[in-house]
Amino acid sequence: MSASRPTVHWIYAHPQENSFNARLFRDGVDALSRDHDVETTDLYRQRFDPVLAAPDLGYPQGRDGNVVDLMGEAHAEGRVPSDVSEEQRKLQAADLVVLQFPLWWYGPPAILKGWFDRVLTNGFAYGPVDPSTGLPLRYGDGLLAGRRALVIVTAGEDERSIGERGVSGDLDSLLFPLTHGTLWYTGIEPLDLHVVHDADGLESAGVDHESVRLVERLSGIRDESPSSPFRRLRDGEYHGTRALRADLLPGRTDLGIHRVTID
Amino acid sequence: MSASRPTVHWIYAHPQENSFNARLFRDGVDALSRDHDVETTDLYRQRFDPVLAAPDLGYPQGRDGNVVDLMGEAHAEGRVPSDVSEEQRKLQAADLVVLQFPLWWYGPPAILKGWFDRVLTNGFAYGPVDPSTGLPLRYGDGLLAGRRALVIVTAGEDERSIGERGVSGDLDSLLFPLTHGTLWYTGIEPLDLHVVHDADGLESAGVDHESVRLVERLSGIRDESPSSPFRRLRDGEYHGTRALRADLLPGRTDLGIHRVTID
Repeated sequence: MSASRPTVHWIYAHPQENSFNARLFRDGVDALSRDHDVETTDLYRQRFDPVLAAPDLGYPQGRDGNVVDLMGEAHAEGRVPSDVSEEQRKLQAADLVVLQFPLWWYGPPAILKGWFDRVLTNGFAYGPVDPSTGLPLRYGDGLLAGRRALVIVTAGEDERSIGERGVSGDLDSLLFPLTHGTLWYTGIEPLDLHVVHDADGLESAGVDHESVRLVERLSGIRDESPSSPFRRLRDGEYHGTRALRADLLPGRTDLGIHRVTID
Repeated sequence: MSASRPTVHWIYAHPQENSFNARLFRDGVDALSRDHDVETTDLYRQRFDPVLAAPDLGYPQGRDGNVVDLMGEAHAEGRVPSDVSEEQRKLQAADLVVLQFPLWWYGPPAILKGWFDRVLTNGFAYGPVDPSTGLPLRYGDGLLAGRRALVIVTAGEDERSIGERGVSGDLDSLLFPLTHGTLWYTGIEPLDLHVVHDADGLESAGVDHESVRLVERLSGIRDESPSSPFRRLRDGEYHGTRALRADLLPGRTDLGIHRVTID
């Protein structure tokens, strides 16, 4: 990780070559490449196989056992499939991770979900208990700590229907399994979401506007940090590794309680 | 849909043949089959392809255009891939849908996520505006209305860490994109989750206990309804199709606001 020229791993998931998403991908990678080393994963173009199966468990012919344990063994013994180890190499080298996808059924497309299932393995992305703290290497202290992530998501709905009190739920909550449960779990700090609303109905001027807006955001990405970071397991705000202490935000049960309170 | 012998579509996603999940699948299907007609989708055994791609858009050679629009056209013109139309047939015939999976990265495995992406198409699972109400055929009034769903999920964590105020978030919120954003969107009413906690560490007696607990739940499933149903778009509690009315649960922004308040 070079301080002068940071490294980016941009993971992109959209099936259509001439889509709005393809335009943002191209323009975003071009813009970042001026002062970053950018490696890409174009999941559709690579025909990435998202189905975690026997080869991921270290035994292509199949073997009984717990999935997490077998993946940990496969990692420790260097028997990870080559398409996965190539993705792990790019991720390991990155200072900044970009995830770009259209919102399908209020989450990432299967091809991206399976990238998480297969690439973020036990032993590579998270670990057991750190002997120095007695805490598991998760939630802020995963094995990929030190990296930040920008999630770029396009949604067909408007800010009210997919916003706070919107009928579809708000995007921060809908994507909590990704931002907190996946990225933060492995130690990668998610920046504020980059959302394009009403993405299905954009005219040409709207597309240009969104491209400019993304490139502007990327121009300042080196100095960006999340406006409301997630809590770190090691800060003692959870009882052991379980539930948030009763004296913190008492009575609240929404997912927002897992963010550091900034008054 | 027969009143005397209801029809079930059980969709199952686990890669390991001798897993705890496989045991629950076998025992659950056996138990339901006594007084239901059960059709199954064993996603791994069927080698279901979860990647939404050009054939799903009606043009195997590829074609520019919006994904949702192209899928709607493909459906209307009968050009849906045969593996998808077979799944749609089973789903269409079902009174009760069962979804069973291990929680991976706080959501369904990619092979199941892609089943949603590909099978629940525009025109089959949801529609545009109903002329009689002026509301879109979504959230309670999707094209699959009249069905109920049981979600069976196995989690490695305990009730505290993945419960209310738990460090991982609570399962009702984590699975909101599935229960509300996917099932309820299409009109399928989700029953309360059936969760197995600490699923990775079960000994033989624990496995037997969980099998009995599932079979007991299934024995009463015909008469079960959700303890806290989601709100219907047509009941007028949202402004148009957008945000929950300010007089309902004022100030709250958690995902629980989308459930009918029962006092």
